[in-house]
Amino acid sequence: MKKMLTAAALAAVAVCAALPAQAQFAKAEDAVAYRQGAYRVLAHHFGSLGAMASGKAPFDAARAAADGEVLAAIAKLPATGFVAGAESKAAKPAIWTQGEKFKQIDQNMIEAAGKLAAAAKSGDLEQIKATFGDTAKTCKACHDEYRQK
Amino acid sequence: MKKMLTAAALAAVAVCAALPAQAQFAKAEDAVAYRQGAYRVLAHHFGSLGAMASGKAPFDAARAAADGEVLAAIAKLPATGFVAGAESKAAKPAIWTQGEKFKQIDQNMIEAAGKLAAAAKSGDLEQIKATFGDTAKTCKACHDEYRQK
Repeated sequence: MKKMLTAAALAAVAVCAALPAQAQFAKAEDAVAYRQGAYRVLAHHFGSLGAMASGKAPFDAARAAADGEVLAAIAKLPATGFVAGAESKAAKPAIWTQGEKFKQIDQNMIEAAGKLAAAAKSGDLEQIKATFGDTAKTCKACHDEYRQK
Repeated sequence: MKKMLTAAALAAVAVCAALPAQAQFAKAEDAVAYRQGAYRVLAHHFGSLGAMASGKAPFDAARAAADGEVLAAIAKLPATGFVAGAESKAAKPAIWTQGEKFKQIDQNMIEAAGKLAAAAKSGDLEQIKATFGDTAKTCKACHDEYRQK
């Protein structure tokens, strides 16, 4: 039996999210807000791991594992928000003109975040320390090249 | 051997994220930005599933599964940003005075999103349709009660 969405469910949808039709983002500003939101969440959990790695916060294995899980799940998301026409103050135009280079730098971050997430899952603080710095460098590489203040 | 973070790695950290010390968020505005970012990412992927469920976008099983994966990973995050002192224009004060009720409504969303994510993983559009509306209702329940325009 083919299930249909009820009118009530469709009305509920309207308050939850704008529905993009063909494009992944209905409007350019949605793409900007999306990537900024994803970077914000990423930075928070990365910062939480960093606080533990540097000894500024006590090591909490369960929290580190949860932070790593979020990292692994969303590291690949923010760059998908750099769609054509979605410029912003913080984003240098080179992101769009140097597509391949930007993609590579982003890919480096995704891979490093994956290793950090695996380390966090292991529950071994030394492994977290060993992989955290490499991930931080990939953040910095992209900020140095493509972020304007 | 105890590994130490190098000075370069620590410098890199500084550009990636503010490091919270004891508290989960260093400042109230960080908590606000975090929850708004998390809701934004959640809404985007939820909206993507909704577009497929309602036929406004063609069904793409791989994309639906990826959307579901993000949902499952971050549904539990945004509510953690409603810490004491982190008021915002969109958030009604009742969130802080009706803690248990808010938590329950949030929990309903997390559970519904989990079912939707499982449906999305199955690759069966009918299952997505069957669980999408219930999830949408949990978004609406919280917005009706706790969001101000």
